[in-house]
Amino acid sequence: MALVNEHFLKLPDNYLFSEIAKKVNAFKVSHPDANVINLGIGDVTQPLCPAVTDAMHRAVDEMGARETFRGYGPEQGYMFLREAIVKNDFLPRGIRLDPSEIFISDGSKSDTGNIQELVRWDNSIGVTDPIYPVYIDSNVMIGRAGLLNDSRWSNVVYIPCTEENGFVPEIPEKRVDIIYLCYPNNPTGTTLTKSELKKWVSYALKNDTLIFYDAAYEAYIQDPDIPHSIYEIKGARKVAIEFHSYSKTAGFTGIRCGYTVVPKELTAGTTDGLDRISLHRLWYRRQCTKFNGTSYISQRAAEATYTTEGKKQVKDTIRYYMDNAKIMYDALTAMGLKVYGGRNAPYLWVKTPDGETGRRFFEQMLYNARIVCTPGEGFGPSGEGYVRLTAFGQREDCEEAMRRMARMI
Amino acid sequence: MALVNEHFLKLPDNYLFSEIAKKVNAFKVSHPDANVINLGIGDVTQPLCPAVTDAMHRAVDEMGARETFRGYGPEQGYMFLREAIVKNDFLPRGIRLDPSEIFISDGSKSDTGNIQELVRWDNSIGVTDPIYPVYIDSNVMIGRAGLLNDSRWSNVVYIPCTEENGFVPEIPEKRVDIIYLCYPNNPTGTTLTKSELKKWVSYALKNDTLIFYDAAYEAYIQDPDIPHSIYEIKGARKVAIEFHSYSKTAGFTGIRCGYTVVPKELTAGTTDGLDRISLHRLWYRRQCTKFNGTSYISQRAAEATYTTEGKKQVKDTIRYYMDNAKIMYDALTAMGLKVYGGRNAPYLWVKTPDGETGRRFFEQMLYNARIVCTPGEGFGPSGEGYVRLTAFGQREDCEEAMRRMARMI
Repeated sequence: MALVNEHFLKLPDNYLFSEIAKKVNAFKVSHPDANVINLGIGDVTQPLCPAVTDAMHRAVDEMGARETFRGYGPEQGYMFLREAIVKNDFLPRGIRLDPSEIFISDGSKSDTGNIQELVRWDNSIGVTDPIYPVYIDSNVMIGRAGLLNDSRWSNVVYIPCTEENGFVPEIPEKRVDIIYLCYPNNPTGTTLTKSELKKWVSYALKNDTLIFYDAAYEAYIQDPDIPHSIYEIKGARKVAIEFHSYSKTAGFTGIRCGYTVVPKELTAGTTDGLDRISLHRLWYRRQCTKFNGTSYISQRAAEATYTTEGKKQVKDTIRYYMDNAKIMYDALTAMGLKVYGGRNAPYLWVKTPDGETGRRFFEQMLYNARIVCTPGEGFGPSGEGYVRLTAFGQREDCEEAMRRMARMI
Repeated sequence: MALVNEHFLKLPDNYLFSEIAKKVNAFKVSHPDANVINLGIGDVTQPLCPAVTDAMHRAVDEMGARETFRGYGPEQGYMFLREAIVKNDFLPRGIRLDPSEIFISDGSKSDTGNIQELVRWDNSIGVTDPIYPVYIDSNVMIGRAGLLNDSRWSNVVYIPCTEENGFVPEIPEKRVDIIYLCYPNNPTGTTLTKSELKKWVSYALKNDTLIFYDAAYEAYIQDPDIPHSIYEIKGARKVAIEFHSYSKTAGFTGIRCGYTVVPKELTAGTTDGLDRISLHRLWYRRQCTKFNGTSYISQRAAEATYTTEGKKQVKDTIRYYMDNAKIMYDALTAMGLKVYGGRNAPYLWVKTPDGETGRRFFEQMLYNARIVCTPGEGFGPSGEGYVRLTAFGQREDCEEAMRRMARMI
């Protein structure tokens, strides 16, 4: 008899964002005339910039002509894009990578979900809390996260990021094999300085811990002392895999392109304690076997973000969202709310008034102000008492949302 | 200490097609002027048809304008495409599916690789032999395939498809939990009739076996009595997941779009023997967590293959490849070679002369005729003594390749 992977059954039935979407849809059905403003899911609203659409049109034309048609690309992505990444995203920060260390993908959600296939099913994991749910859920599915008790998984070490510690995670007392870090952080919008991140690299080097570093929001960093890549820290190549995405950088959420850096110096151990195995080799094998490369059109689109016009246009869009963030930050603070993030990230982490739960405040916002936010506890136990707002809306929606919230509060 | 997933280390270091690509590249480097004809990897050569490129241009324009921009799509794909699939690929064959049973993906390689996550790691698997390597390799990575001995995995039941049995797999004596079937077959190019496929559905129903049915080449079927979908067989919805791809149908190898059908009636058991779990629910959860949908441009491209012009243009391209197949089949037969497939599939399965190994004949073809083929043993033990040729080349290349082979033989 075929038996299911019962680890799946431990998962609550709905992925957080799908669950919220359903609640919002139900509200819309019962309030068909309501103008609901969505500041919940982190999806962009500004169109692709002209440099990108021009490149895509050219790529489509190439695919329609026999002389220039391309079939399967390399599973790891085209060299034109891998080279542009090395040259533009890393070299200016003093990081030398080989293009073969860059793996193009259809987005960092796939890669952050799939990367755990490379390690033993019983390795221990640590996560900063609150956290992007994919990191944990993908580990639940393979049995690595253990059992769920009172919104905590038994084999997961939660590292709280709270008001008290200024959202800077402390090195855990219990050693972990794998740690997930995401900076600028989703959902709190907070960042780590170079010296704070250095502590984690030292910890990883000392404990033979592997770091999965999600840098999906690095393009939003404004302050100069905040690292854009973990490889700005010496020694990180030996311990860290880094994930990047064009989704938020260039509005590619519907285009699907990202990349993952797996340095060739990065190794992990074997049970006999004798060998060190290259994770680059394993990821290469994984991608060759279970992935067939990213759409050529999407790769040309990503390449275009590195042209002179592309860079300028992408920067303008990021400026637009960050201006939204500032408008929202100032308005929320003026309402007397405590707000974190929003300075180097498109996320604002808002403490609920009067110690309400995030879920309750989410419902109040939806029913009373017709604004969608994300309840903080959906991101983990330390998210309790917060909601996440995103700055990805249209300007006028952000402004209107702030007016409605001011009235509500 | 972070430990690697040691199941990966059991895999030979190179995925078959990558290994062949390296050998071919080495030959090209040492013979820079040689006109090498690639009839090896199953990649298409004809450009995208105008109906498709027109749709893609329109989609790019939509993404470049604020009013029509779309961010994240549903992880399972847009309803416009799922409905077009139900209406065009299934209804005309008398198969009623609900659009929610269709999951759009970035190609069937990803899905056939990922689908095994839904079942217990120790379920037994059966494969027809020879076989597309992804099915086995993805099971090796999770530990389900056991150990490799003499080109056979210890926990895999191999079901030989050979000249002796007319390439029709016999029901295995040993019961298996999961069976992979691919028809029209890669690599042999052979097919199953409706009554032959019916035996497998009956077997699955009787033994509570799950069928993973890869229909990536169904568009190449010419004979009317050959099923295009396993759901043409009564009861198959209870036991089978089916994979489809636009790669070979419409030349999408560089565009990345496919789909997987998971009927809502399909269930598998739990260890306590009490529950039946919907695999639709699990695949939905898997995709929501580890996948973020297929490029909007690719989905609009796929939709365009179902328009009146799109259908006609796609059919013309398939006709072109199938004419190649006929030319090759006739030429190879005239050379005195034994050839299978090529009538309802773009693959020709050619018996090597004088009982040579496939790998040796591959090298002879490369060095003496400058033709790339794929050695049969790369597809499993029963592939020994064969090579696979594909009909995806340019017409003049196929003809030239046949002239060179005739000289060589």
